[in-house]
Amino acid sequence: MKASIITIGDELLIGQTIDTNSAWMGAELSKYGFDVYRITSVHDRREDILYSLKEATGKSDVVLITGGLGPTSDDITKQTLCEFFDTHLIINEDVLFMIEKMMHHRNFPMNDKNHRQAEVPESCRVLKNAEGTAPGMWFERDNTIFISMPGVPHEMKHLMEKMVLPELKKRFTSQTIIHRNIMTYGTFESKLADILTDFESGLPSNIKLAYLPASGIIKLRLTGTGSDKESLSKKLNDQVDILYKTIPEYIYAEDEESLEMVIGKLLKSKQKTLSAAESCTGGEIAHLITSVSGSSAYYKGSVIAYANSVKMQLLGVKASTIEKYGAVSQQTVKEMAEGSRKLFATDYSVATSGIAGPDGGSDEKPVGILWIAVASEKEVVCEKRVFGDNRTINIKRFSLASLNLLRKQIIKQ
Amino acid sequence: MKASIITIGDELLIGQTIDTNSAWMGAELSKYGFDVYRITSVHDRREDILYSLKEATGKSDVVLITGGLGPTSDDITKQTLCEFFDTHLIINEDVLFMIEKMMHHRNFPMNDKNHRQAEVPESCRVLKNAEGTAPGMWFERDNTIFISMPGVPHEMKHLMEKMVLPELKKRFTSQTIIHRNIMTYGTFESKLADILTDFESGLPSNIKLAYLPASGIIKLRLTGTGSDKESLSKKLNDQVDILYKTIPEYIYAEDEESLEMVIGKLLKSKQKTLSAAESCTGGEIAHLITSVSGSSAYYKGSVIAYANSVKMQLLGVKASTIEKYGAVSQQTVKEMAEGSRKLFATDYSVATSGIAGPDGGSDEKPVGILWIAVASEKEVVCEKRVFGDNRTINIKRFSLASLNLLRKQIIKQ
Repeated sequence: MKASIITIGDELLIGQTIDTNSAWMGAELSKYGFDVYRITSVHDRREDILYSLKEATGKSDVVLITGGLGPTSDDITKQTLCEFFDTHLIINEDVLFMIEKMMHHRNFPMNDKNHRQAEVPESCRVLKNAEGTAPGMWFERDNTIFISMPGVPHEMKHLMEKMVLPELKKRFTSQTIIHRNIMTYGTFESKLADILTDFESGLPSNIKLAYLPASGIIKLRLTGTGSDKESLSKKLNDQVDILYKTIPEYIYAEDEESLEMVIGKLLKSKQKTLSAAESCTGGEIAHLITSVSGSSAYYKGSVIAYANSVKMQLLGVKASTIEKYGAVSQQTVKEMAEGSRKLFATDYSVATSGIAGPDGGSDEKPVGILWIAVASEKEVVCEKRVFGDNRTINIKRFSLASLNLLRKQIIKQ
Repeated sequence: MKASIITIGDELLIGQTIDTNSAWMGAELSKYGFDVYRITSVHDRREDILYSLKEATGKSDVVLITGGLGPTSDDITKQTLCEFFDTHLIINEDVLFMIEKMMHHRNFPMNDKNHRQAEVPESCRVLKNAEGTAPGMWFERDNTIFISMPGVPHEMKHLMEKMVLPELKKRFTSQTIIHRNIMTYGTFESKLADILTDFESGLPSNIKLAYLPASGIIKLRLTGTGSDKESLSKKLNDQVDILYKTIPEYIYAEDEESLEMVIGKLLKSKQKTLSAAESCTGGEIAHLITSVSGSSAYYKGSVIAYANSVKMQLLGVKASTIEKYGAVSQQTVKEMAEGSRKLFATDYSVATSGIAGPDGGSDEKPVGILWIAVASEKEVVCEKRVFGDNRTINIKRFSLASLNLLRKQIIKQ
């Protein structure tokens, strides 16, 4: 099963837009066992689009195409598809009706451009787009399926999830495919691969393991292929169980959950509250926590204590502590966490102090150093970490490390 | 001048990594007048790489290639380039020396893999990579230049900026090309295009205008082409002057500066200090401000006041204000800004209260509503804005709007 992807749009070639559609589509097709052998981006230019279509014909079972379906004159994908499939544009009444309804709802008058959006190549099957005005189009020729979709990511994903992927799955996979995503934090890909060498070689031949790292988090994806759903599911469960036993210290969740989502769930279920005191992370921890919808149920607030005066005045860090040990120290961060927990009257508080860089480091306290403290009713635990010298990356990594320590403390109690 | 880009790596096709290199390279090549007509991503697979190289030969003046240069066995770009250019690998002593030095510095022993990294195709010109172990390689054949670089973004950018772009510029552009980037905030691309219709049609034929929007910010790029640098520069200055006169309310900086960088510069030069009180933005404003290196010189801290109790207790918002007007109101946000300014003893303070969504809206106060206040010694100004219903996007847009009001207030005084 071979697949290729063509993304169309001037903005991709001149670097104005990063092509995120291809990665998403590639990941989805791979899940269903397709070998995505090529991704091509071309301009909104007739000859370039035609060349890409010709090139994919016969070589790919499926060609996914996005972009160039807008109402403006630079978008020419529909006309070019007509030329390639030797057909012509006709008004599709269903699409026209949907566009009229959408425009009416938004209180916009219909114009020529909207009418043109209801035109589709006569020979295609129309995929109705509930999230926008440009419909998807399904063509078949020389044993190749061509599916043209809008370039707007959420519209493309909508068409893929509702129509394209279910149909491709039905037509191309006689077998059942099940994925299990295990989220890990706290180690490197190469180290994890070392630890899991035996696990991987012991996997049944119909279960594959993939490492999917993304900025500090490594997702482990187990993909099982088989004929019987129930027995396959059981087999995968067994392997997931082994994973949990092999690397319990790294697994924090399943599927696509983030650390902040897991923390939110834990706090909600235990009916506990949270506050934070951030120095070097400068608000990123608060941002991550509040990026979870419904976080106001457990999160009360934070002090971003960039200046030492704020650490003392608001969080009650003793002047003598800062003087003796410095702002970046176990003692200071401990007092920050305790002070924040008291100030906000919360069950938990997490505090950070470190040097994000690129300047401000010393031999004793290099750029990349981080002290974390988590205070709860029972205890305050502290952790020291050392990361790299990139400010932006450090702030992200510092925040993840802090959230992970917080998560472990909530679980422990 | 035609150019194409080939990015190599399994991770790109299975969607594990989003190809950001292509957009960056596309933007850079476009700046120098190249027509990037095609971007192709292929697996670390001999036949796919060879096919892409063949396809580009003769059609492109320049082919940029990234990826597949790592030391592990799945990386086969070097061997495949040897096959394509009918040459073989030899040890490059300069590269070997650099790798040995790098390994020594990091206290790692040299191994077989490191040795293999010093191998390069005999017929290529080596581009020394000061940021990693894999060198760049420059080939020429059939009037096409092929440049192979590592896939690690900062290594690729280093080679591009130091060696590739200067040489391409020398060989392909007999003319002088000058870019001026004008950063704008506060309006949509289509509205800006409307306002600038006359400006655009009045531009000299050798100056082009491009709109480069990115999450709320629109960068206007003027590109001038000419034979005489001085007169071209003057011509561009004249046009930039007209832009400043036409849309003074939207321009906030030049080049790649962010709002938080501009604010930092303003505060530093005026020797003023800043604090913040955030509700709905949940720490994102603090995060943006502290993402600027050196921000501790003017930023003292923030209160993230998610709970109403925090707004009252720490920021001194009156219970009666919240009761009468609600937490999301001009009155509350005004008291938050005043309270924060007093608490942190800063010259300026910015405060936010709104509904980021997706839940919690009402007819009177819909999801996407935002109240901002900026307090200074002289006055407190407030602004109401209404955005969409996506929580993640709202938090970003809320924060930008707040920073922009803050920037305007600092300039005013």
